[in-house]
Amino acid sequence: MARRRATDSKRARSRGGPDSFETLRSALRQFATERDWDQFHLPKNLAIALSVEVAELLEHFQWMPDRESAALPPGKRAEVREELADVLLYLIRLADKLDIDLVSAAADKMVINSKKYPVHKARGTSRKYTDL
Amino acid sequence: MARRRATDSKRARSRGGPDSFETLRSALRQFATERDWDQFHLPKNLAIALSVEVAELLEHFQWMPDRESAALPPGKRAEVREELADVLLYLIRLADKLDIDLVSAAADKMVINSKKYPVHKARGTSRKYTDL
Amino acid sequence: MARRRATDSKRARSRGGPDSFETLRSALRQFATERDWDQFHLPKNLAIALSVEVAELLEHFQWMPDRESAALPPGKRAEVREELADVLLYLIRLADKLDIDLVSAAADKMVINSKKYPVHKARGTSRKYTDL
Amino acid sequence: MARRRATDSKRARSRGGPDSFETLRSALRQFATERDWDQFHLPKNLAIALSVEVAELLEHFQWMPDRESAALPPGKRAEVREELADVLLYLIRLADKLDIDLVSAAADKMVINSKKYPVHKARGTSRKYTDL
Repeated sequence: MARRRATDSKRARSRGGPDSFETLRSALRQFATERDWDQFHLPKNLAIALSVEVAELLEHFQWMPDRESAALPPGKRAEVREELADVLLYLIRLADKLDIDLVSAAADKMVINSKKYPVHKARGTSRKYTDL
Repeated sequence: MARRRATDSKRARSRGGPDSFETLRSALRQFATERDWDQFHLPKNLAIALSVEVAELLEHFQWMPDRESAALPPGKRAEVREELADVLLYLIRLADKLDIDLVSAAADKMVINSKKYPVHKARGTSRKYTDL
Repeated sequence: MARRRATDSKRARSRGGPDSFETLRSALRQFATERDWDQFHLPKNLAIALSVEVAELLEHFQWMPDRESAALPPGKRAEVREELADVLLYLIRLADKLDIDLVSAAADKMVINSKKYPVHKARGTSRKYTDL
Repeated sequence: MARRRATDSKRARSRGGPDSFETLRSALRQFATERDWDQFHLPKNLAIALSVEVAELLEHFQWMPDRESAALPPGKRAEVREELADVLLYLIRLADKLDIDLVSAAADKMVINSKKYPVHKARGTSRKYTDL
């Protein structure tokens, strides 16, 4: 059994290794286990944490004119990059604690969105699907 | 050159295809282009949209006792799965518009976090690193 | 006309002065004018700022068990008090820029809520009105 | 002492009745009591609810250019008015459950803000006080 896993693992690596999501999910699990943080990582708490990180991201755009946000100066961009990372890490951790596969959830949602926003109706408008 | 790319691409596929992030990023780009939505997808607006989606996720936990959030009933879980997908999709889209590589940003942040929260100090406590 | 207003105003003062909302609204206006901040105080930006302040408030409850949140230690309570103030100040400022009377809006909403959540249906349940 | 309070209270009423905050706070208390909702109204839950309402407010500005947000069309304005009311009601309720006086907290914060942002430094800039 252990032997079989080793072989699978070797094959995986020769195919380019596991997906980035899987790599981050495992790293976050180990990070939490080492610190005995599973006791705090209840989905309700992680959803709050995610929301706090998104606000830290949003804060960078608070007084910025719309257009300027498309071309951030390097210092600001580095800060935003770090906030984006925080959001992703909590998102992956939350999905893991709920045993939800983020990638397949996102793929399913893309299909739903393409039905909610058919090209001929949604083209060039920012209206919500309920108002199309 | 074109020939070389084709070969690389073929090899990529034989190694299991592109990473999920890359796949979703491309799909979202195409989705926006087809609908002429790039005009709305300014980072400031996408950060707002991300924040709105996270709140829709959080709403599911609003009146729920902490512990119950660890074992959602199937109907609730399906709704939460869809909200998680929305968050991921806006996050990937926002990172793409800022030309930021989410996966490397997250990997870098894991390194920072492991310094901020060394195991011997952070073990078993939910205190912020500034209070460790 | 000016004379009549002066009289009304004098009467208001003799009745104990303006309402707290009115006092804060005026103080915030003056604060912004003195700093030439009206150029930044577009409703979209103020709504973002409000959202950032609410997240700073929420952060205090991030890893806290539900029940503990009902009895904050004094230091934490003082921090939370300051965040609540920030939320109120941005809320009043945003309403002012939109020329919306918060107090009458809240009174109207109380009437709507009492219809959405009639006592005999809503008693003892946290379900949303759409699920009652 | 009790006699004196009664007199003050009577004077308050003859001066135009209680403050709007006090009126709303009492109305919200009664609303919750009638529905047996105090069991759900833990500060952590109310802070989440507040955050969800602010996001519903923010959603109205999601794809709206900055400048347009200063002049909302009537239908949109009515929706925004209702969201502002929701935010205020949860804010007052949360402060009440924490036994915090919102008005004095806001007045104290105005003093802090005028020190953080002295006119000669803050005039015409949207920089955070830490960067002034």
